Amino acid sequence: MTDTTPHHSLTLLGLGDMGTALARTWLAAGHSLTVWNRTAAKAGALASEGASVAATAADAVAASPLVVVCLLDDASVGAALDGIDLTGKDLVNLTTGTPGEARARAAWAEARGARYLDGGIMATPTMIGVPEAGGYVFHSGSRALFEAHRAVLEVPAGARFVGEDPGHAALHDVALLSAMWGMFAGISHAYALIADEDIAPKDLAPLLSEWLGAMGFFAGNAAERLTSGDFTSGVVSSLAMQVVGSGTMLRTTEEQGVSTELVSPYVDLLRRRLAADPAAHGGEDTTGAVLLLKR
Amino acid sequence: MTDTTPHHSLTLLGLGDMGTALARTWLAAGHSLTVWNRTAAKAGALASEGASVAATAADAVAASPLVVVCLLDDASVGAALDGIDLTGKDLVNLTTGTPGEARARAAWAEARGARYLDGGIMATPTMIGVPEAGGYVFHSGSRALFEAHRAVLEVPAGARFVGEDPGHAALHDVALLSAMWGMFAGISHAYALIADEDIAPKDLAPLLSEWLGAMGFFAGNAAERLTSGDFTSGVVSSLAMQVVGSGTMLRTTEEQGVSTELVSPYVDLLRRRLAADPAAHGGEDTTGAVLLLKR
Ligand SMILES: NC(=O)c1ccc[n+]([C@@H]2O[C@H](COP(=O)([O-])OP(=O)(O)OC[C@H]3O[C@@H](n4cnc5c(N)ncnc54)[C@H](OP(=O)(O)O)[C@@H]3O)[C@@H](O)[C@H]2O)c1
Ligand SMILES: NC(=O)c1ccc[n+]([C@@H]2O[C@H](COP(=O)([O-])OP(=O)(O)OC[C@H]3O[C@@H](n4cnc5c(N)ncnc54)[C@H](OP(=O)(O)O)[C@@H]3O)[C@@H](O)[C@H]2O)c1
Repeated sequence: MTDTTPHHSLTLLGLGDMGTALARTWLAAGHSLTVWNRTAAKAGALASEGASVAATAADAVAASPLVVVCLLDDASVGAALDGIDLTGKDLVNLTTGTPGEARARAAWAEARGARYLDGGIMATPTMIGVPEAGGYVFHSGSRALFEAHRAVLEVPAGARFVGEDPGHAALHDVALLSAMWGMFAGISHAYALIADEDIAPKDLAPLLSEWLGAMGFFAGNAAERLTSGDFTSGVVSSLAMQVVGSGTMLRTTEEQGVSTELVSPYVDLLRRRLAADPAAHGGEDTTGAVLLLKR
Repeated sequence: MTDTTPHHSLTLLGLGDMGTALARTWLAAGHSLTVWNRTAAKAGALASEGASVAATAADAVAASPLVVVCLLDDASVGAALDGIDLTGKDLVNLTTGTPGEARARAAWAEARGARYLDGGIMATPTMIGVPEAGGYVFHSGSRALFEAHRAVLEVPAGARFVGEDPGHAALHDVALLSAMWGMFAGISHAYALIADEDIAPKDLAPLLSEWLGAMGFFAGNAAERLTSGDFTSGVVSSLAMQVVGSGTMLRTTEEQGVSTELVSPYVDLLRRRLAADPAAHGGEDTTGAVLLLKR
């Protein structure tokens, strides 16, 4: 093998679906990879692809200065690394968790002499190593660690640094998933509405996609309003009108024999915003509802 | 004025924000337009732009074979047209309502000797007469009426016929608005999550837009699954995994001091789908939740 790229050595803990996908991309890129998995059998195929298989997590950590962790949850990270010497290690934790868990894990790692970078993977295993799939990883925590290992971290998928607060990768991850589930909920409600009608879901689909694409401007528009505090300039569809329209939507939902459970909470929030001061808020867009969500 | 386009005569009842915008486009296109509004003063400007102003709704209806109605709600349509002779008229009702109201209004109009077409306007007044704004009107009911007057109906905005059931225009309208509000709810939740963090909404906005664009495939994918009944083939992110991920999302929401009200109903639905038969549903995508919404 002619080795023309600089290659690095790293360790990966966790060979579930995601860990295995990550591992393959580093092996394919010619990096020296040491792997460990609680259930050792899962390392077999990777060994034949060139990975060094460590017998224990401690051996795996000792093998490389860069240690990537991709386990089930934060508790499994604590369990796997318990009692292991992390002095001088660069620990990259790609395990999904909350911002609070990431912050606590960063403090825990730093207290053990490691630099810490958290990651939130915005991809499925099938998108790993497939740049055109558009997957990427949010990273936050040690900027120095990120810069030092950026090339390695970008092998499986794009890497985006979102700040030195170690909780911010997880927060970005969750924020995007929340928005996605909201959209999925809305789309699900739309399909439930036509369930017993002579309307084919595949005929509604392109209309939904086109409409959601056209209404996607809301993300940018709301950001501007939340920053400026100006909820009324240039409003094309006022809160007052949307509250009226949402009433038609709820009545239609009842008529169609569909549960209102997915749609009524946002309507309630819009109504509360309007009712708090109809004169002041009636001409706003719907962004003001964000302010009512904060406890 | 050189009149090279065939022009038509029509009547419009209702000169609120939307009716006024519609009226201007027909006048600009050279059509003979008779208008009526309950509060007569609103017709003044249009009269100077060439509209014939009728003194009563009955006079307005008598003036043209094609009568377009754009009033506040279905009750106002009933009030405005009460006792008026509709024999031989083509009635196009662009007033927002439920599918049930549209069906009842169609039967009511047909019993009075009129042909009936319902409409759901997917545009704000500012988008009327501005083709590049992409607004359009869903129409359903009499296909013959739609075909006969299509050119006139397409003057203010695009016109899309979605079936002979007079309720289907309203149903399409509400379905798209539901999906939009779901997306708005998700985006609102995302912004609430970062409210007290050192993350600028304008930095989150493009990430949200990109992610929602990438996840927009769900509309088409769900349509295929609802048609085939196959919820498992080619699933990249399983219901079981999404339920786990939604737990992280809810815990993050609590950590951030944000209400779960907008996000928990969809999570509950996903959990119910999974719990109903974990072995059967765990490998599905999230489309199955649609089936639980129908009462
Ligand atoms: N799969 C995706 O689509 C996806 C997408 C984005 C993010 N992620 C995240 O990536 C991480 C891994 O996901 P995955 O899909 O690879 O999960 P997975 O297939 O379920 O694998 C879980 C991994 O965690 C290990 N593990 C669990 N409990 C442990 C413990 N107490 N001690 C040591 N190891 C333990 C498992 O070891 P055993 O083999 O011994 O059970 C296995 O290696 C998760 O945090 C997930 O949220 C996944
Ligand atoms: N504006 C939008 O962005 C938009 C978008 C899509 C669809 N739409 C739909 O278009 C329709 C009209 O909306 P708009 O924005 O023009 O509303 P608007 O500005 O509030 O105007 C309401 C109209 O209804 C009339 N009206 C109300 N009650 C009446 C009654 N009992 N008898 C006779 N006339 C009555 C009003 O007459 P007076 O002048 O005498 O009060 C006025 O002409 C609504 O169904 C709305 O949902 C609007």
